[in-house]
Amino acid sequence: MVEQRKPIPVSQAVEQVVEQAHPLGTETVALEDSYGRILAEPIKAAHDVPPFNRSPYDGFALRSADTAGASGERRVRFEVIDHIGAGEVSGKSLTSHTAVRIMTGALLPEGADAVAMFEQTVDSGDSFTIRKPFEPMENVSLQGEDAKQGETIIDSGGLIHPGTIALLATFGYARVAVSKQPVVGILSTGTELLDVSEPLSPGKIRNSNGPMIAAQLRRMGIHCKLYGMSEDRLEESFAVVKKAAEETDCLITTGGVSVGDFDFLPAIYERLGAKVLFNKVAMRPGSVTTVAVANGRYLFGLSGNPSACFTGFELFVRPALLKMMGAEKIYLPKTTAILKEDFTKANPFTRFIRATYDGTYATPAGFNKSNAVSSIARGNALIVLPGGTRGFSAGDSVDVLLLGVEEGVQQWQL
Amino acid sequence: MVEQRKPIPVSQAVEQVVEQAHPLGTETVALEDSYGRILAEPIKAAHDVPPFNRSPYDGFALRSADTAGASGERRVRFEVIDHIGAGEVSGKSLTSHTAVRIMTGALLPEGADAVAMFEQTVDSGDSFTIRKPFEPMENVSLQGEDAKQGETIIDSGGLIHPGTIALLATFGYARVAVSKQPVVGILSTGTELLDVSEPLSPGKIRNSNGPMIAAQLRRMGIHCKLYGMSEDRLEESFAVVKKAAEETDCLITTGGVSVGDFDFLPAIYERLGAKVLFNKVAMRPGSVTTVAVANGRYLFGLSGNPSACFTGFELFVRPALLKMMGAEKIYLPKTTAILKEDFTKANPFTRFIRATYDGTYATPAGFNKSNAVSSIARGNALIVLPGGTRGFSAGDSVDVLLLGVEEGVQQWQL
Repeated sequence: MVEQRKPIPVSQAVEQVVEQAHPLGTETVALEDSYGRILAEPIKAAHDVPPFNRSPYDGFALRSADTAGASGERRVRFEVIDHIGAGEVSGKSLTSHTAVRIMTGALLPEGADAVAMFEQTVDSGDSFTIRKPFEPMENVSLQGEDAKQGETIIDSGGLIHPGTIALLATFGYARVAVSKQPVVGILSTGTELLDVSEPLSPGKIRNSNGPMIAAQLRRMGIHCKLYGMSEDRLEESFAVVKKAAEETDCLITTGGVSVGDFDFLPAIYERLGAKVLFNKVAMRPGSVTTVAVANGRYLFGLSGNPSACFTGFELFVRPALLKMMGAEKIYLPKTTAILKEDFTKANPFTRFIRATYDGTYATPAGFNKSNAVSSIARGNALIVLPGGTRGFSAGDSVDVLLLGVEEGVQQWQL
Repeated sequence: MVEQRKPIPVSQAVEQVVEQAHPLGTETVALEDSYGRILAEPIKAAHDVPPFNRSPYDGFALRSADTAGASGERRVRFEVIDHIGAGEVSGKSLTSHTAVRIMTGALLPEGADAVAMFEQTVDSGDSFTIRKPFEPMENVSLQGEDAKQGETIIDSGGLIHPGTIALLATFGYARVAVSKQPVVGILSTGTELLDVSEPLSPGKIRNSNGPMIAAQLRRMGIHCKLYGMSEDRLEESFAVVKKAAEETDCLITTGGVSVGDFDFLPAIYERLGAKVLFNKVAMRPGSVTTVAVANGRYLFGLSGNPSACFTGFELFVRPALLKMMGAEKIYLPKTTAILKEDFTKANPFTRFIRATYDGTYATPAGFNKSNAVSSIARGNALIVLPGGTRGFSAGDSVDVLLLGVEEGVQQWQL
């Protein structure tokens, strides 16, 4: 007797999963270790930007008052009394018709309130002439014009990428408050599974889902606890799942969630007293994907089929973990692309197809039998064909979810 | 006297840089450490896929010959003599009108050549009946139907992502041949620079480019050697650059490449006998970006302006490093997007503008003065406005380079 399950739409499944995420709190890390983490406090300007009046050009710092009346016919001459580059401070103070040769980024010397660019001067080494008057603060980057001390520059909740690190460095954040990372466990179930280093034997295949998920987590900057593989035996699997669920914020299992005679995850969830959010999603592959929650911890029961497992991780596990980490942008970005090949199968459920997206076209990685094996290793996107459709042709516009990006978009888009 | 430099187009600059890349050789790493590396050998099928004839469904394995003549009126009965799940091997051999209850993925028992799915049977526990004949190999996944032993599944040169790891695991690659990573050094030049942990002082700013580039490298999975900061003094800078260039495959400096009085990189390149590929690119920001080669090593002279530095890394350093690592897809992927805000400045040179791309729109991160400081920390894309243009309006279609993606496209697209 096969159990009847009620499939729910993908969008609803995602919503139900994400709802359960609880925040994990914060910790501080060294700036150089902060790449890829989620910023847990806003970045505030620790000082004005620029921090002082500075020259935006190579030229001469002078007193604008001395330039009054200058013209092509009546050039005004200045004596050069010092020469500074960025980071240097002139010890000189300007007096009438004196100037300091100054490089881009340098602090204006005392008395100076304007900069004549080289191309605005005729330079003879110790002195130069100008042919126009300068306004006070002409060609000067004013202290605080880009940002005022105390101003919020970036809100919390964003992924720390190289540009964020530039800002943190600018404002002296040698240590950064970031969201804690979840403790994630992986357990592969299936009597058929061998470890990667074991030789094949009759009826067995190697466990590929475990290493794959570990890499999907690594791509998110998350390290995981490996609980190895368990055979399809209820008592032993229950013990392993129970222990792993207690030791982690999120336990990802692969296999065992279908309706076969040795699919014990449903029984294990029941024994654990876990709340099953759903056990059937209107999607292909991966309709048996099951998500449960026990004591505030996630139990993700992904399909043992590698494509389904991969997709289930990206659709459900990823946003849940990102939300636990306080991220604002938790979903895969979506775009539209032109389908490169015909796809004639019916789609009773929403279908996710690995594809390579090149900015215009989406080429399915495994429509043809001949590249079915390699399809899992190809592509940077998932083509999404809505449920209840049949027959897409090369040239059709299709939705595409982008994989392998550092950061996504804020709203679920399907 | 300001030196005159001849700007070259961005595409030509990229080509000249990439041309100089030399491969670094290969090494092997453990499968679990291979994520993000470049595959240095093709993945070959170490065995047939599937490795044995297996059941693609939950059902009963039987002998097709026994099903001849079955119909709704003349149902044929089978005795169930064993019960196996995936990974189990039945010790039984089928004889006339016997069958084995079998789960998805399990090896077909001896004598069986077809599978009746549960929904094709009426099951009474110890026996079941069918109402149709079965062809030999009906409902059987045949050994080798997806891939034959020895077949090349994935070529070398691709980035190892989670799906690649699944394939490697499937075929027992406990260790993986990957391209060696370049030794990359970072040296920030500028008398004005302070370390992130130092307090501000007059005329000084903190070094943000060094930590930013370290993070850009980290995003590519590359660790770097930090050569700290050097003041704008020719002799000392020369010594540091010379040493760093000898210790690295690629030395990235920031600052010192313009035409100011204390910009010593051009003189240092000359003293090193380095071949300068170019010292002016028709781009904004970053027109002073300089790339040189000495003894087969790269010397990237990026601008000290943070936006220019960031862009110079992504446009020039990234593809060079990827090519050294044997990657096939070395360029940032390009797409088109709808501009979200007006941009009225003239673009004598190609302009790169940080932006957030949401799959449809590209929103510039820093057109407005008010968010200029934060623009470096926003966005996942660069809007590209061609040189020789003026005035783009909200709604215009513009080219966009996607940042923060794991893997790019094979051809430079601008």
